[in-house]
Amino acid sequence: MENPCANALPLIMNSSQKQKTVCIFGTGDFGRSLGWKMLQCGYSVVFGSRSCQMSSLLPSGTEVLSYSEAARKSDIIIIAIHRDHYNFFIELTEVLNGKILVDVSNNLKINQYPESNAEYLAQLLPGAHVVKAFNTISAWALQSGALDASRQVFVCGNDTKAKQRVMDIVRTLGLTPLDQGSLMAAKEIENYPLQLFPMWRFPFYLSAALCIFFFFYSVIRDIIYPYVNKKEDNTFRLAISIPNRVFPITALVLLALVYLPGVIAAILQLYRGTKYHRFPHWLNHWMLCRKQLGLVALGFAFLHVIYTLVIPIRYYVRWRLRNITATQVIDKKDDPFITSTAWLSDSYVSLGILGFFLFLLLGITSLPSVSNMVNWREFRFVQSKLGYLTLTLCTAHTLVYGGKRFLSPSALRWYLPSAYILALIIPCAVLVIKFILIMPCIDNTLTRIRQGWERNSKCSKSALFGKSDVSSKAECTWASEL
Amino acid sequence: MENPCANALPLIMNSSQKQKTVCIFGTGDFGRSLGWKMLQCGYSVVFGSRSCQMSSLLPSGTEVLSYSEAARKSDIIIIAIHRDHYNFFIELTEVLNGKILVDVSNNLKINQYPESNAEYLAQLLPGAHVVKAFNTISAWALQSGALDASRQVFVCGNDTKAKQRVMDIVRTLGLTPLDQGSLMAAKEIENYPLQLFPMWRFPFYLSAALCIFFFFYSVIRDIIYPYVNKKEDNTFRLAISIPNRVFPITALVLLALVYLPGVIAAILQLYRGTKYHRFPHWLNHWMLCRKQLGLVALGFAFLHVIYTLVIPIRYYVRWRLRNITATQVIDKKDDPFITSTAWLSDSYVSLGILGFFLFLLLGITSLPSVSNMVNWREFRFVQSKLGYLTLTLCTAHTLVYGGKRFLSPSALRWYLPSAYILALIIPCAVLVIKFILIMPCIDNTLTRIRQGWERNSKCSKSALFGKSDVSSKAECTWASEL
Amino acid sequence: MENPCANALPLIMNSSQKQKTVCIFGTGDFGRSLGWKMLQCGYSVVFGSRSCQMSSLLPSGTEVLSYSEAARKSDIIIIAIHRDHYNFFIELTEVLNGKILVDVSNNLKINQYPESNAEYLAQLLPGAHVVKAFNTISAWALQSGALDASRQVFVCGNDTKAKQRVMDIVRTLGLTPLDQGSLMAAKEIENYPLQLFPMWRFPFYLSAALCIFFFFYSVIRDIIYPYVNKKEDNTFRLAISIPNRVFPITALVLLALVYLPGVIAAILQLYRGTKYHRFPHWLNHWMLCRKQLGLVALGFAFLHVIYTLVIPIRYYVRWRLRNITATQVIDKKDDPFITSTAWLSDSYVSLGILGFFLFLLLGITSLPSVSNMVNWREFRFVQSKLGYLTLTLCTAHTLVYGGKRFLSPSALRWYLPSAYILALIIPCAVLVIKFILIMPCIDNTLTRIRQGWERNSKCSKSALFGKSDVSSKAECTWASEL
Repeated sequence: MENPCANALPLIMNSSQKQKTVCIFGTGDFGRSLGWKMLQCGYSVVFGSRSCQMSSLLPSGTEVLSYSEAARKSDIIIIAIHRDHYNFFIELTEVLNGKILVDVSNNLKINQYPESNAEYLAQLLPGAHVVKAFNTISAWALQSGALDASRQVFVCGNDTKAKQRVMDIVRTLGLTPLDQGSLMAAKEIENYPLQLFPMWRFPFYLSAALCIFFFFYSVIRDIIYPYVNKKEDNTFRLAISIPNRVFPITALVLLALVYLPGVIAAILQLYRGTKYHRFPHWLNHWMLCRKQLGLVALGFAFLHVIYTLVIPIRYYVRWRLRNITATQVIDKKDDPFITSTAWLSDSYVSLGILGFFLFLLLGITSLPSVSNMVNWREFRFVQSKLGYLTLTLCTAHTLVYGGKRFLSPSALRWYLPSAYILALIIPCAVLVIKFILIMPCIDNTLTRIRQGWERNSKCSKSALFGKSDVSSKAECTWASEL
Repeated sequence: MENPCANALPLIMNSSQKQKTVCIFGTGDFGRSLGWKMLQCGYSVVFGSRSCQMSSLLPSGTEVLSYSEAARKSDIIIIAIHRDHYNFFIELTEVLNGKILVDVSNNLKINQYPESNAEYLAQLLPGAHVVKAFNTISAWALQSGALDASRQVFVCGNDTKAKQRVMDIVRTLGLTPLDQGSLMAAKEIENYPLQLFPMWRFPFYLSAALCIFFFFYSVIRDIIYPYVNKKEDNTFRLAISIPNRVFPITALVLLALVYLPGVIAAILQLYRGTKYHRFPHWLNHWMLCRKQLGLVALGFAFLHVIYTLVIPIRYYVRWRLRNITATQVIDKKDDPFITSTAWLSDSYVSLGILGFFLFLLLGITSLPSVSNMVNWREFRFVQSKLGYLTLTLCTAHTLVYGGKRFLSPSALRWYLPSAYILALIIPCAVLVIKFILIMPCIDNTLTRIRQGWERNSKCSKSALFGKSDVSSKAECTWASEL
Repeated sequence: MENPCANALPLIMNSSQKQKTVCIFGTGDFGRSLGWKMLQCGYSVVFGSRSCQMSSLLPSGTEVLSYSEAARKSDIIIIAIHRDHYNFFIELTEVLNGKILVDVSNNLKINQYPESNAEYLAQLLPGAHVVKAFNTISAWALQSGALDASRQVFVCGNDTKAKQRVMDIVRTLGLTPLDQGSLMAAKEIENYPLQLFPMWRFPFYLSAALCIFFFFYSVIRDIIYPYVNKKEDNTFRLAISIPNRVFPITALVLLALVYLPGVIAAILQLYRGTKYHRFPHWLNHWMLCRKQLGLVALGFAFLHVIYTLVIPIRYYVRWRLRNITATQVIDKKDDPFITSTAWLSDSYVSLGILGFFLFLLLGITSLPSVSNMVNWREFRFVQSKLGYLTLTLCTAHTLVYGGKRFLSPSALRWYLPSAYILALIIPCAVLVIKFILIMPCIDNTLTRIRQGWERNSKCSKSALFGKSDVSSKAECTWASEL
């Protein structure tokens, strides 16, 4: 259902005999773009302006009138004017009475004013029906038709009929209206287009910090150490070997950090003996961006997979394999097959593949359209059960990778252990604590707390209308954090 | 538009001068959690309870009154009480008359009662406007704000205005209301949160059975047979080689089983000469979970791809390649390049890659948000045409893999053929039958049957108002099963 | 919420005491299928037909009456009759007055009639409330329950209450109604099911043309040239080597063609000095299918990745590596490690991996459900910033691939340069022009033009009510094309 009025212009012009008139206050860029689009979609458009000239800039086929004259032509008036000039409308109170005013304005900063522009307008003109809409759509997109981005128009307003009328216009322009309820939602709608990935910031900075730390750590161990000790030039490792050490470590740590806040929350609840205390702010924020943390981790895991798969086509690897074979032949060394090494190598790779596969499944289920299809019970099954399985597999993958070298003193360089050993600390800690938390005695207490039981409550639960509350919900919705 | 009232609490408190009051019956966990959330979002909340104490448990800022007193404070009453206590409301009939009652209850089992809780409540209180809502949301999620899962709230009710009011509340809480129509939908909505992947069970068990069978089959041929005959220890193959034999076979069989029910349905329709007989129940269920079958198959295919790509970095493979080269050099054997082998090897790999690519495309188009963007004609084009092409490519991939060894007696071990030969039976059968079905003579009959023609109909089709029915739909929608 | 009435038939039959009656005009296949489904979902169905017989074909439990008799039984009448017979309804004007008529018809061709069928029906019967619905659903899908495809039913109509009633029926049948506004949308809704990937055609044909050209180009250079000059049989390269040369080239060129129209548009705007002139039609269409172009390019890039990763398991590659090692050992040649070659090889691979990773990110954000979650500012950040970074990385990947051989005369065969050199022309051109366009002096002019400034405007901008227009939108929405 793309571009309803892009090409069908003449047809629609013919078929809609009774062209509806829409009035637009303000001849700025957004007003003109919206007017141009409405004209295309079969509306007739009247502009209201302080000075009634300048029709050269305006789309041909439109009129420019004074505010009060323009307002009389239509019962829907789009206010494409800056908030600072709203008080000017007090003069027009009488004309605008009963009209539908569509506030399309945005601000420069999030929460710039105490109340939203639309609510401010509604206070100035209590007789008019103010509807907030169109602020998330760009004038450039309207004009160019390049609506690759979201076609969603958030609409809110206190008058249902006014809202319906505006939503019909939105649909006619080929956009998708989303009813956001009453004008109380306007503040949120006005903040929306100003956001730039608010939930992704913490995961982004955290992963950047982890990457930088492990990058320099690996550079010291793998490039500077051999150069100082053996005068080897290993700088070419910067392109693939070092990233392929940094990425899996970052992925594993981030994945563990997805599950750490849940574990901390459980400990806090056990300690406090109630779920009715709010968590500290940092924990709340951490819990809210677990999905983003997980997706960043998945990105690093994906890079690790590809960097690993290209190993055999690298010049360095081919050169080394060639030389090993040549040495073996020339020295006539025997090269026996060691089954335990084959087991270690294969199971390490296999654990990694299975872990990555489950990780990918988690990523797919976090797609908005997929997570909308599953109910809470299914979502928790996937995110909690599969999530911990993924963490366990990936941790095991790293442990087996270490294999026999694990913690052996010969792996230390300048007293620095291998980077993967540092990476294992958080995942192992999370898994151990989680294992303790799911032991029956602790799990039962936690489940009761999450069902509303309080350790220090003066009145026992039975005194409440407890038995009759919606306790059946517990069956599917409690019993564990994510 | 996440978390509308998470941080903006004080602002919203200020801006909404006229706080609306909502009454909640029941002070159990869900009632308290919902009340807490509503308080956060600017509502004032009154609890109705049998005993009017216990305010320590309840969110501060709320009141606890008796049922009838609380009900008088608001025209929206949320019933967070177990169904067993609904009959208690008969006493309150007068007070609740004309009020909007929001039933949030769930049951313990699917179809536990003959009628839904909401319909039962509506029968008890015919004067009230019952709306079903919120039952798919977890109290824990409401409280913690961790609404990672679906924010969708299914709403249904017979009174449109009451439904609208409830949907406005849902939106204010930062959730997405989905209008499900009249109260007849309540049963479905109450069953929804109790489901655990109902459509995925058959595919899951089927693929598990296939995996186990082919796993033991491969273990016998590849590990036990060499051990018995040559005392070779091949157990390390359990980690990668055996899974990489089991997964592609399972994927291929499952993919064929996606298309088998369509073929069976076509044969049934040809045999019966009509489309107006219902298919047997098992066939219907099979057809309804084809998408899930296909996605499970895609998962196995993906694992096969990665298990194949890691081959060159395995210790065993490197060791074997090294030894082959060493033997060649030491024995001074000539190693001529065999073009036919290169052709077989390359085309086998190439067919597999193309098959996997198309398979992935099929998977992507089955994402809910993508399949909502395509019309029926496009969907059928992708799923039917591309689907059969995928099956053909994957079957050819397996056939060429066999190459010259195919059916050669030397490949038998204890009279057991290679596992991939068993895997080819169903795909080849499906492709052969499909090939027969699309031959013009048969295809024409099938098309006519699917357009509503019946072989044994007493009256000929022309007697009907047939020419004038919406036959044009046939152009794009018939002509073949999936 | 799948299949509401599939299994629950008897329950629903019981629980809905007051079965609503729906009348269906036309006993063709779609009418019968819809009637069958409605019967299943608890409606009682009456068919209206010219001849009142033939109940054998109709679902049992329904009645067949004459049109006028049937119409009297229900206030909702589904018109499952071909448009050609609509004028027949003029006789029934009186009976149909005030009734809700649901037009389900489709046409054979896009824009077959000047006005939509639903609008035509509304003109014939001005007293009835015409609602367009169900035309995107297939009769076969309704009957078989195999609604794998979209469950979306586009609904439009001028009467809000009539539309609500029809949307309730749609929901009861387990489908998702989408309100498309007034009857003006009917034309678009009727065209919708006839489309077959309209936006994908240009990308498809373009990529096919590119593939074919580069395929034959590579065949000449890599197969015919060696055969003619050295009598080498390289035909086996057709399976993997040649595709793995054609696919990355096509991907790179297509990716560059995604960003070329934006660059052309910017030049056009700079030249014209205004944004208020429409772009030529071809440029508009090109801009509208950039997303599809990008996704096709991503498909080719994905194929390139897998074709590259399978290199080490190919028979030809293993044979060649074996022979190189053997020659080295037998000839006792020294094989020194060349750091610069390792650098080139590794950085070429690394650039490719990072480019592919960002490309994949772009692909994921273009999924409808993901792009609906981001606002315009975020979308532009991803598509424009990340997009150009991807193009830069992929171009660098190709440049480094050339490495020292780049433009060396020895690489010419029959005066033909390597194919990848041709592939670099468009990407390099786009990047160079883009680099010029983002230089401050030019960028400022462009930004002002996109904010509505016109070079040749007679009146200066300050004369307008310019300062008060919604200039704040500029902050987040202008400043560059995609």
